Amino acid sequence: MTYADRWLLPDGIEEILPDEARPIDLLRRRLVELYRTWGYDMVIPPLLEYTDSLLIGLGRDVDLLTFKVTDQLTGRTLGLRADITPQTARMDAHSFKREGANRLCYAGHVVHTKPKNPLATRTPIQAGVEFYGESGLAADVEVVSLLLESLRAAGLPKLHIDLGHVGIYSALIAKAEVSEAQKDLFFAMLQRKAVAEIEAWVSENITDAAIAKVLLALPGLAGARDILDKARDLFAAVSSEAVNAVDELASVAEVIQTRYPEAELYFDLGELRGYHYLTGLVFAAFAPGYGNPIASGGRYDHIGEVFGRSRPATGFAVDITALSKLGLLSAPQSGLVGFVDDGSAEQWRKVAELRAAGERVVSATSREEFAALGCDQVLEKQGDTFQVSSL
Amino acid sequence: MTYADRWLLPDGIEEILPDEARPIDLLRRRLVELYRTWGYDMVIPPLLEYTDSLLIGLGRDVDLLTFKVTDQLTGRTLGLRADITPQTARMDAHSFKREGANRLCYAGHVVHTKPKNPLATRTPIQAGVEFYGESGLAADVEVVSLLLESLRAAGLPKLHIDLGHVGIYSALIAKAEVSEAQKDLFFAMLQRKAVAEIEAWVSENITDAAIAKVLLALPGLAGARDILDKARDLFAAVSSEAVNAVDELASVAEVIQTRYPEAELYFDLGELRGYHYLTGLVFAAFAPGYGNPIASGGRYDHIGEVFGRSRPATGFAVDITALSKLGLLSAPQSGLVGFVDDGSAEQWRKVAELRAAGERVVSATSREEFAALGCDQVLEKQGDTFQVSSL
Repeated sequence: MTYADRWLLPDGIEEILPDEARPIDLLRRRLVELYRTWGYDMVIPPLLEYTDSLLIGLGRDVDLLTFKVTDQLTGRTLGLRADITPQTARMDAHSFKREGANRLCYAGHVVHTKPKNPLATRTPIQAGVEFYGESGLAADVEVVSLLLESLRAAGLPKLHIDLGHVGIYSALIAKAEVSEAQKDLFFAMLQRKAVAEIEAWVSENITDAAIAKVLLALPGLAGARDILDKARDLFAAVSSEAVNAVDELASVAEVIQTRYPEAELYFDLGELRGYHYLTGLVFAAFAPGYGNPIASGGRYDHIGEVFGRSRPATGFAVDITALSKLGLLSAPQSGLVGFVDDGSAEQWRKVAELRAAGERVVSATSREEFAALGCDQVLEKQGDTFQVSSL
Repeated sequence: MTYADRWLLPDGIEEILPDEARPIDLLRRRLVELYRTWGYDMVIPPLLEYTDSLLIGLGRDVDLLTFKVTDQLTGRTLGLRADITPQTARMDAHSFKREGANRLCYAGHVVHTKPKNPLATRTPIQAGVEFYGESGLAADVEVVSLLLESLRAAGLPKLHIDLGHVGIYSALIAKAEVSEAQKDLFFAMLQRKAVAEIEAWVSENITDAAIAKVLLALPGLAGARDILDKARDLFAAVSSEAVNAVDELASVAEVIQTRYPEAELYFDLGELRGYHYLTGLVFAAFAPGYGNPIASGGRYDHIGEVFGRSRPATGFAVDITALSKLGLLSAPQSGLVGFVDDGSAEQWRKVAELRAAGERVVSATSREEFAALGCDQVLEKQGDTFQVSSL
C-alpha cells in the first residue's frame, strides 16, 4: 500500500466530520432523553459477542450481515453486532429480574458486512427501544407512538409510517395446501410484488377459489385506511385469524390517528419485512428523499425462547446515520472566542469562566491565527479588564 | 450450545445495565461538551477500517490488540479499532483542509482482542482529544490541563497525574555505544524497573563512567518536583538533549501547578509507556482503587507521515468504562410517574406535558403494576383534573 492510498476508507465505511458529527450526537442525546421520559432504561450492550447469542432465529439475512472473528481467549466465534435487538432480548431474559414489563433503550453503532442498500453505510448508528413482557395492543400503540415522537424529535417535516401485520400472510398461506418449497416461491414473489408471476403461480397451485382470490388480492392490499375494510371482507371467507390481524391493525391505527392527527398512515397487508422473526404488527417510517425506511420495527414475541425465557416483545430502531444524510438535522450555531495566552492568572480565570458558561474559547499562538481557527470573537484586555469583543 | 449457556458473554466483554449506563452516558456528554468549550470539534471515526490505516507505527502491542476480519467487498483486511488516535491522524492528514491547529475530540468504543490488564474490559468506551499542528509547549500544557478538567468533570476527588518525557530515555541510550539488541534488553529491564538486572547489565556493557551513572540512576528518577533538578545535574555531563527534555517537563509542570494548585504532579523520567510512537512529553492519570491509568496521552509528532502529512500532535484518551467502575459516577435520582391509560385525550395531553417537561412517565396496564415498574408517583384523576401524587 502506497502513501497515496493509505488514507482511503473501505466502500460503505465512513468517517463523520464535525459538521455532521455534532448534529448526530445531539440527536442521539435527544432520542435517549425522549425514551427516558417514556420510562425506557438505557443499556449499553457489547459491540461483539458469541454468534450463538447474536444469531438467534433472525434469519439468514442477519447472519450474512454479521462479521465474524475468532475469540483467541475462548476459541469460539464472535460476531460484530449487525442488530442490537437480539442483545436486548438476551439481556431481558437473563440480566434483568423483571417479571413484568421491561422497557429498554440503546444508542450505538452496528456493523454490516455489506451495505443494506446502495445508499446505506456499513456502520450505521442506531437508537432504539425494546418493550418486553407486554402482549397487549397497548404495547404496540406505545412503540408506534414513540416512533412518531422520534421522527418529530429528528425534525422530520412529515410523519409518515407504513403499518402491516405479518399474521395476515402466515394465516392465509397456511390455508393453501401446497408444499413448503412452493410457499417459499410464493413468498419470494409476494416480496417483489411480482403480480404477473403470482397470477401464474396461483392458477397453477391453488384450486380453492376463495383462497386463490385472497392470495391474488394480497399484493394490492396497500393504501389508506379503507383497505382494511376491504381486506376484512375478503379474508372473512378464508381465515378468522387473518381477520383478527386486520382488526388489530385497525385498533392500533385508530388510537395512533387520534393522538397524532398529523401522521400519515399507510397500510400494506402484503408487507413481509422481517417475516422470519416478526410475529405481529410491523411498521416502518419513511422520509422524503430516502427510499429505504429510516426507522422500522414490530412485534417479535418469543425471540427470548433460545435464552430460556420466551416473552412478548415489540420495539423499533431509528437509523440516525440515514437521518443525518437527509440534512434535516442541524446544531445551533455558536461563536468561537479566541485568545492569545499571556500567562496571567487573570486571563486564565476569565477563560475558565467563559468555558464554564458554555462558551467555546480557543487558544491561539498569535492574533494572526484567529482567522484560521474560525474565531468570530476575541478575548483581550481593554483598559483594566479582559473583555470579549467581535472580530 | 445449550439453552443454559447461550446467554453467556465472552470473558472481558460486558454488557452495561441501566444503573451504570446512565452515568456513563452522562459523563460521555459532559466530556464532549467540555472539549467543545475548549474549541475541540467532535468527529466520529468508523468502528473498523483497513489495517493499513489503523496499524501505523503504533507498535506491535496495538497490532496484537486488534481484531481483524476480511472485507468481502474488497478482499482486504479490516481491523476493529483498538485505538482511535491513528484514525484521527488519518482524518487530520486528509479529511481536513486545516493548515494550522486542528483540535478534534471523540467518544466511542474501542475493541481489544485481550484485556489490557486483568481488570479491564475488552470493549472499553473512550473519550479523548487530539491536537494537531502545534509543536510548542503551549499545546502540551493545553492537553494536560484538559485532562485535569476531564478528571474534575468525572468527579475524581484527587487530581493525580504522572509526567514523563520519552526524549530523556532516547537521548541517553543514544550515548551508550551498544548494539540495538543490547538496547532492547536494557529497554525491557528499565520498563520493569529491574534494578539488580540493570546494575549487572551496565557494569558489563557500559565503560563510560558518566553514562553508566545516568543509566543506573534512571529507574530511580521518579518522585516530586525536586527530582527534576537532580536529573538536570546528572544529565548535564552526558546529553544536552536530555537536559532540554527535563526543562520542557519543568516548564509544563510549572504552568500546570499554577493553574491547578490542587493537582498532585509526580514525575517519572524512566517512564517508557508508548515509547514506540510517543515523541515528547507523556502523561497518565491515576485514581485511587485502580492500578492502571484511567487516562493517558502524550506527544506523538509525525504519526501522520504514513498518510503523507507529518504534523506535530498531542492528545489523550480517558477510559470511561474504567472510571465508571470506580463508582464515582452517579446520575441524579429521578422519579417515575405511573398512569393507567384510560384512552382519554385529556389524560394523554397531561402525560405529553409531563414528558415534555422532562418527567419520566410510564404506562401501566393496571394500578397493581405500579410497584413492579418502580413508580413512586401516580397520575390520576382527582376531581375534574389529572394530578400527580405520591404513591
